[in-house]
Amino acid sequence: MIEKRNMKKVLFFFGKFAFMQLESVLYMIPVPISDGSLRDILPLGNNEIISGIKHFIVENVRTARRFLKKMDPSTDISQIVFYELNGHTPENEIWGYLSPLRDGVPMGVMSEAGCPGVADPGAKVVMIAQNEGLKVVPLVGPSSILLSLMASGLNGQKFSFQGYLPVDPKDREKTIRDLESQSRRYDMTQIFIETPYRNEKMMESLLKNLGGETLLCVAADVTGKEERIITKPVRRWKEEGFKIEKVPTIFLFYSIGSRK
Amino acid sequence: MIEKRNMKKVLFFFGKFAFMQLESVLYMIPVPISDGSLRDILPLGNNEIISGIKHFIVENVRTARRFLKKMDPSTDISQIVFYELNGHTPENEIWGYLSPLRDGVPMGVMSEAGCPGVADPGAKVVMIAQNEGLKVVPLVGPSSILLSLMASGLNGQKFSFQGYLPVDPKDREKTIRDLESQSRRYDMTQIFIETPYRNEKMMESLLKNLGGETLLCVAADVTGKEERIITKPVRRWKEEGFKIEKVPTIFLFYSIGSRK
Repeated sequence: MIEKRNMKKVLFFFGKFAFMQLESVLYMIPVPISDGSLRDILPLGNNEIISGIKHFIVENVRTARRFLKKMDPSTDISQIVFYELNGHTPENEIWGYLSPLRDGVPMGVMSEAGCPGVADPGAKVVMIAQNEGLKVVPLVGPSSILLSLMASGLNGQKFSFQGYLPVDPKDREKTIRDLESQSRRYDMTQIFIETPYRNEKMMESLLKNLGGETLLCVAADVTGKEERIITKPVRRWKEEGFKIEKVPTIFLFYSIGSRK
Repeated sequence: MIEKRNMKKVLFFFGKFAFMQLESVLYMIPVPISDGSLRDILPLGNNEIISGIKHFIVENVRTARRFLKKMDPSTDISQIVFYELNGHTPENEIWGYLSPLRDGVPMGVMSEAGCPGVADPGAKVVMIAQNEGLKVVPLVGPSSILLSLMASGLNGQKFSFQGYLPVDPKDREKTIRDLESQSRRYDMTQIFIETPYRNEKMMESLLKNLGGETLLCVAADVTGKEERIITKPVRRWKEEGFKIEKVPTIFLFYSIGSRK
């Protein structure tokens, strides 16, 4: 028996094939957030675990299938069971998804992009597992939120992820101003996301409502070929001009007033 | 020329040796948070980048050296320049660290554990680079904060990382109660860290001050052999008993009252 990390894995050898038997665990499995090479964004160790799993709870079946095929083109997708978990899945159905895990079979949770359980509905099924004392193990992978923060230069000792801001322009502007004063009061970086087609409107609202010295970071296409993570005071964003693309983007700001 | 991700890398072949020349970039380089195997927690692609860097800004020179040797035992440490950046390094000295990068030489930033720029002093040097328009690229790796959140089952659509709570018992208890009411008001998971030898005291304070139905997650030795990430209502933590070890631990809580 090989014990590695905190999962008991049993390797059986038949000729040149090795079969791994995973412990009964709910694995939280990150998937890519851009089109780059998997070896740049996922540890090799993840592959072994993923290839031992036949039951996946996923935000989007199509992207989950595509990821499994990209990771290992020899994957027989017809042998894999997918359970769709999105914002509309009823609670009792989610509860039922964990039956294989309750019977001792390992399962995986995958988001549409990035790390499951963060900025997606994945936490619901994890809470059910935690409540029943089932073991949950997270795997390492790309999170645009964390990667943006690392490269932003903004305060990483205190930060808040706010999800999506309100769509209504008035509400959104008020929220931006509230978050700015919270940033100053609590010495905290504010992080949020927007759907790509609204990026430009978001940037307009930010430049209109934030103070000139507030540091604003725009992180676009993180881990992708066109990745750019740029931090400047709002004043300089306005002076120097910019082009916001319709690509996945994270916005972060930190009010300079909060510096002690 | 091979263009991969967003870094221009030039490969030269001399016999069986390939030399890679990296673009002039400040790379944010994650390091392990436990004693496990590197292939379980770091993408292979990181190795190529790291082996092309000779100038590292690090929180702790000894752990940085050990990591580079573990990644590639053939590394000639005597050829590598380390610049120490901790909470006490003066601002003008940090400014000077970036001289090689200004001259077009790639540099790396490494924390003592996990992702640089998050819960460490690394952001200071990144802000200087961002201010001068130097390019910053984050690499994927383990963050105990993010991994704990993924496996906690707590709200990952809104969360706050609070760093360390106050040490003074009265201040700490007040802070815990304030964070609980913020969690309820803003529907937000609260995340914070503690130095291992104070874990037990922290747990006592939490159980004493949080409401019985508040969901508390204790994430210990994340990615390590003894990893356990367990979420239960405060009431059940009290009833069922527990043992808190002196290992790196992340605490997370979410006030159930915030659920809509």
